[in-house]
Amino acid sequence: MGMNMSEKILARHAGLEHVEPGQLVTCRLDMVLANDVTGPPSIKEFEKTGRPVFDRTKIALIPDHFQPAKDIKSSELAKIMRDFARKHDILHYYEQGRVGIEHVILPEKGIVGPGMLTIGADSHTCTYGAVNGFSTGVGTTDLAVGMATGEAWFKVPEAINVHLTGKKPADISGKDVILTLIGMIGVDGALYQSLEFTGEGVADLTMTDRLTIANMAIEAGGKNGIFPYDDVCKDYVEGRMTGVFEPVNPDPDARYARTVEINLSELRPVVSFPHLPENTKRVMDIPEPIAIDQVVIGSCTNGRLEDMEIAAEILKGHTVHERVRCIIIPGSPWVYQESMKRGYLDIFMEAGAAISTPTCGPCLGGYMGILAAGERCVSTTNRNFRGRMGHVDSEVYLAGPHVAAASAILGRIATPEEVA
Amino acid sequence: MGMNMSEKILARHAGLEHVEPGQLVTCRLDMVLANDVTGPPSIKEFEKTGRPVFDRTKIALIPDHFQPAKDIKSSELAKIMRDFARKHDILHYYEQGRVGIEHVILPEKGIVGPGMLTIGADSHTCTYGAVNGFSTGVGTTDLAVGMATGEAWFKVPEAINVHLTGKKPADISGKDVILTLIGMIGVDGALYQSLEFTGEGVADLTMTDRLTIANMAIEAGGKNGIFPYDDVCKDYVEGRMTGVFEPVNPDPDARYARTVEINLSELRPVVSFPHLPENTKRVMDIPEPIAIDQVVIGSCTNGRLEDMEIAAEILKGHTVHERVRCIIIPGSPWVYQESMKRGYLDIFMEAGAAISTPTCGPCLGGYMGILAAGERCVSTTNRNFRGRMGHVDSEVYLAGPHVAAASAILGRIATPEEVA
Repeated sequence: MGMNMSEKILARHAGLEHVEPGQLVTCRLDMVLANDVTGPPSIKEFEKTGRPVFDRTKIALIPDHFQPAKDIKSSELAKIMRDFARKHDILHYYEQGRVGIEHVILPEKGIVGPGMLTIGADSHTCTYGAVNGFSTGVGTTDLAVGMATGEAWFKVPEAINVHLTGKKPADISGKDVILTLIGMIGVDGALYQSLEFTGEGVADLTMTDRLTIANMAIEAGGKNGIFPYDDVCKDYVEGRMTGVFEPVNPDPDARYARTVEINLSELRPVVSFPHLPENTKRVMDIPEPIAIDQVVIGSCTNGRLEDMEIAAEILKGHTVHERVRCIIIPGSPWVYQESMKRGYLDIFMEAGAAISTPTCGPCLGGYMGILAAGERCVSTTNRNFRGRMGHVDSEVYLAGPHVAAASAILGRIATPEEVA
Repeated sequence: MGMNMSEKILARHAGLEHVEPGQLVTCRLDMVLANDVTGPPSIKEFEKTGRPVFDRTKIALIPDHFQPAKDIKSSELAKIMRDFARKHDILHYYEQGRVGIEHVILPEKGIVGPGMLTIGADSHTCTYGAVNGFSTGVGTTDLAVGMATGEAWFKVPEAINVHLTGKKPADISGKDVILTLIGMIGVDGALYQSLEFTGEGVADLTMTDRLTIANMAIEAGGKNGIFPYDDVCKDYVEGRMTGVFEPVNPDPDARYARTVEINLSELRPVVSFPHLPENTKRVMDIPEPIAIDQVVIGSCTNGRLEDMEIAAEILKGHTVHERVRCIIIPGSPWVYQESMKRGYLDIFMEAGAAISTPTCGPCLGGYMGILAAGERCVSTTNRNFRGRMGHVDSEVYLAGPHVAAASAILGRIATPEEVA
């Protein structure tokens, strides 16, 4: 029987011809990632091994969660990572001002790409499936071992074939696709499974769409999410990646545990209601207006240039509702600078939005827009668990950049077509 | 005997022809200011009076210290102020994205100006002396009473005549003037006194210079700092201020407790060493290189357009030292947007600096660049007390934008002329 994309990458990195779901394999790693929250405990574990790092060019240490340091503890965490990066001459370490959100900058800089196997001490490491890699989140101990040995073990996951057809309507982005999918299968719908996206609908998804979708594979419980290598992927990685890479596509007889069908043409703008990403509703089906206090546009899920472009197109000539704080966070210095050059940041300022330096910030309740009791936020981030973005009695509604920008203008959850 | 500027403003607002140092006077207030730290306790005290606000157009509530909210507590503080502002329809309340640092936006928007009497529950309220006003920091109880009655009592301060002559060298800004002055008279050198700036050297100081200087009057213990009404002041306030204002200038026989002479031509770039603003040293006199970890350019002291311009001119074509985090914080949305239009933000990004949304942030150890133990920061902020910007074992070196930008490039305390 043929192999699907995840199986092919795991087999290749285990030095095997073939692997099967459930099989335990030890794989060599192409990239090992940690951030300022997970890096320090990983480093502590690593030091116990007494080894050097396996490859200083295959480790990425990205201070993005609470940096520029939000408090003394954060500054101490960053310092541990910084000192370690200098000591071991880690190639992919970047200082504040030159660093963005890990899952934005690694694909952007071509540090991850097709056929690559990446582990990261961050649950949204699954993002890099968008560029045809197998990537997944691990704990700090596994990460420490990875930094020392360049290897990790995996149980080959079963895969769900998410078969996409049709074409996205104009007000639909990857976020609507993944929130709709999670609404269909639930937050444990893909537990320890791979989400493999196939079908002719894939060609209609931009790289930004794919990065958003793969990013949230974990929100369905997935081990990883992965997209085929096609022209969109080729166009994205060429020029970014140096050296040889080995793309994968599924065999015609690849094995899938089940298939989920999504017709992109039928999608409508959605939001995920508190307090789970699976509480997906179409905005058009919300019976009563839901007034909001804050909008956040950014994060590893939606902090890319195309997200900024969508928000700018909607906000242009409009003003953020007087009762709303709209916080926009370009995900990397490049996204920030390019958004500035294209006039998006000026549009955001004219509209009355606050623009942050790249950071995870409010997504995980870090800083830069924490919610008070009773406050409601429409956010392009990835989790709306109780208290995720502040007080336990605050509410987060997950959405894509279209709905987030429209909601900022109208002061309630809204679609772009409601904006005059 | 004639009156100095502070005496004239206090007399006029007390309905008196003449006041003398030491006299207790009750004055009507033109503007009453609080921020997200001091506003909530002031509001709590205010509510005890059971009164309405004295004038909804003469109160400014500015959420700038820990906003966009850095944590749940900050978000609750902002909410108290927001709810109060809405309830009382406070004119000068602005939401995130439309708000900057209080002492940057009040002069910028023409909310404070010549001859005006302002109290603020923030020690740097003295900033508005730059635009020929009498303004001073008060506690939250005084502020609450001010919001209810529109009045406050003052002991008329003695005044120090800071007599300025000469012209600034190219690498000197208002920050060098005030740090030099504080170095001369000490942090208690003007305790409960007014610092009145006079002499032909005043004409050589831009409004930005004056705002920086008046801002730090409190760092010499001053009750206030005040500049004459001249062409520079006239040019600045015209077009910003609406309605009538009554400038003041000192009488020829105005009374001063003493005179301090500063020849601007003789000034050289300075820094104030840890842990007091009075520890002023000329950079050229520092015997050994002092390596640094961070540079902050911003705050109510140096977060204005001219500060951004100075930093941009120095950083242009250069790169922030690889070991340094350079955090640049435009003080208001206007400063931010104008810096963007003029290309300064692009220069900062090219250099590898992080640009923050307007906030007080790291100045008072809030967030956006808190220091770890052992770290050193060159900062354009106003206080370098032990632990002010983070860990008690961190160090803050106060400087103007020239030295801060040059230091960011060289990774050590430096002057612009040292930058190749």
